[in-house]
Amino acid sequence: MSRITLDQAQAIVAAALKEGRALGLKPLSVAVLDAGGHLVAFAREDNSSNLRPQIATAKASGALALGVSSRVIGEMAIERPTFINAAAGLNADGIVPAAGGVLIRDSAGLVIGAVGVTGDLSDNDEKAALAGIAASGLAS
Amino acid sequence: MSRITLDQAQAIVAAALKEGRALGLKPLSVAVLDAGGHLVAFAREDNSSNLRPQIATAKASGALALGVSSRVIGEMAIERPTFINAAAGLNADGIVPAAGGVLIRDSAGLVIGAVGVTGDLSDNDEKAALAGIAASGLAS
Amino acid sequence: MSRITLDQAQAIVAAALKEGRALGLKPLSVAVLDAGGHLVAFAREDNSSNLRPQIATAKASGALALGVSSRVIGEMAIERPTFINAAAGLNADGIVPAAGGVLIRDSAGLVIGAVGVTGDLSDNDEKAALAGIAASGLAS
Amino acid sequence: MSRITLDQAQAIVAAALKEGRALGLKPLSVAVLDAGGHLVAFAREDNSSNLRPQIATAKASGALALGVSSRVIGEMAIERPTFINAAAGLNADGIVPAAGGVLIRDSAGLVIGAVGVTGDLSDNDEKAALAGIAASGLAS
Repeated sequence: MSRITLDQAQAIVAAALKEGRALGLKPLSVAVLDAGGHLVAFAREDNSSNLRPQIATAKASGALALGVSSRVIGEMAIERPTFINAAAGLNADGIVPAAGGVLIRDSAGLVIGAVGVTGDLSDNDEKAALAGIAASGLAS
Repeated sequence: MSRITLDQAQAIVAAALKEGRALGLKPLSVAVLDAGGHLVAFAREDNSSNLRPQIATAKASGALALGVSSRVIGEMAIERPTFINAAAGLNADGIVPAAGGVLIRDSAGLVIGAVGVTGDLSDNDEKAALAGIAASGLAS
Repeated sequence: MSRITLDQAQAIVAAALKEGRALGLKPLSVAVLDAGGHLVAFAREDNSSNLRPQIATAKASGALALGVSSRVIGEMAIERPTFINAAAGLNADGIVPAAGGVLIRDSAGLVIGAVGVTGDLSDNDEKAALAGIAASGLAS
Repeated sequence: MSRITLDQAQAIVAAALKEGRALGLKPLSVAVLDAGGHLVAFAREDNSSNLRPQIATAKASGALALGVSSRVIGEMAIERPTFINAAAGLNADGIVPAAGGVLIRDSAGLVIGAVGVTGDLSDNDEKAALAGIAASGLAS
């Protein structure tokens, strides 16, 4: 089983931002965390608002915390809002219950990290995240 | 009134995990706290997500905080979400309003601790918790 | 590169506690964390004080935070107390600058986790930690 | 007055890491913050310990918090440790009183951000930080 490298993380960031430009999205922020939830690479496009680093990180960290994408966490938040509030309070980097946080898996299917994207509509954030992972050769 | 021992706590953990395997559950995490809410024993099965230690602990701690199982707290959270959010903010280890946290009682019926299980659906977490307590000879 | 398993973590805990009994130490608490700093196994012996779970965890978490044993962090704390105070404030699980927290390495020498022991004098806590790792077949 | 751009921030990160390799340093982490203290770019080299993102960020954030390099803050910490401890507690991202955090200035001499480097000895962290800024065409 592998560990995500800085090269892989930076490839994910670059490809996610490139997808954002291709789709004409608002300025994006992209965070890539390792399996333990620790930041490996991050980029925030010009003219982004101030909380984007924390939101991108929380989307990724939440996915690693609960073992599902932040889109799924968003669905859980509709059915069980108090549970998701509680979980967010327990996670050091918080949890953001909206699409854009996607687990990163190696070729064996084991989780080696997560990417979190924020800046546009959640669905678009997630598109950028998935494009980032695809370009890196890793799986989601 | 007795105090829960490490031997009893480890027996609860082992039996809860064994029940999980018998039921074919996802990887479980089991925390046993003493009457004061302090961790006595904990185990997290391989391939669990990152927040499981805190969730297992919060299920048990919440039960001790409010004097009812975390299943009951989950029901309270539907009727009175603001109260449960507030209580979770007050408790150092948080409160998770979902089944899986069960009070442990001695033969006199006095609370001597709590077990918290997480990893599968809440109903199944609670089954593992109850199996753990039953195997230890203590009551719930 | 490998990930620490629950079996390995529980072996470390058991062997550390056994060493404590062999040396006639005060009641010990032993925490084993994975490479990301997340708790895998924990045990607190009977008649331990309340903060032992957090102290054991912080010794191990601090070692993973800075990449050195908590004994070395204790030495750093003498030379650069403000730096260690600052680092402790930045780490979600804190840092305890005293011996007893030891990094766990796989056969390739890569860090796969850490063990933290507390309960007796720091030097003795560290002896128990090292005995725990040795018995598990892993390296330190 | 200009604002630091993502391109400039990424140039600083890349050049700082390149300097680290040229000097044979341990794995580095580099954070670039804008004038408001918000993360713009970050990279953590492989085999770094877990707290490096927070330490790099705190070195840069502290420089922006007090208006001096973190080397100077380290000197202040020797003379006035209680003040620096207090300041660190007030700053959301903390303050690390060791060299490696350097203010970034535009051609008019106005502060537009800060870089924070960690991973090796503080003096070497600062060399990498200064090399990063120099390569970006900005001033320090």
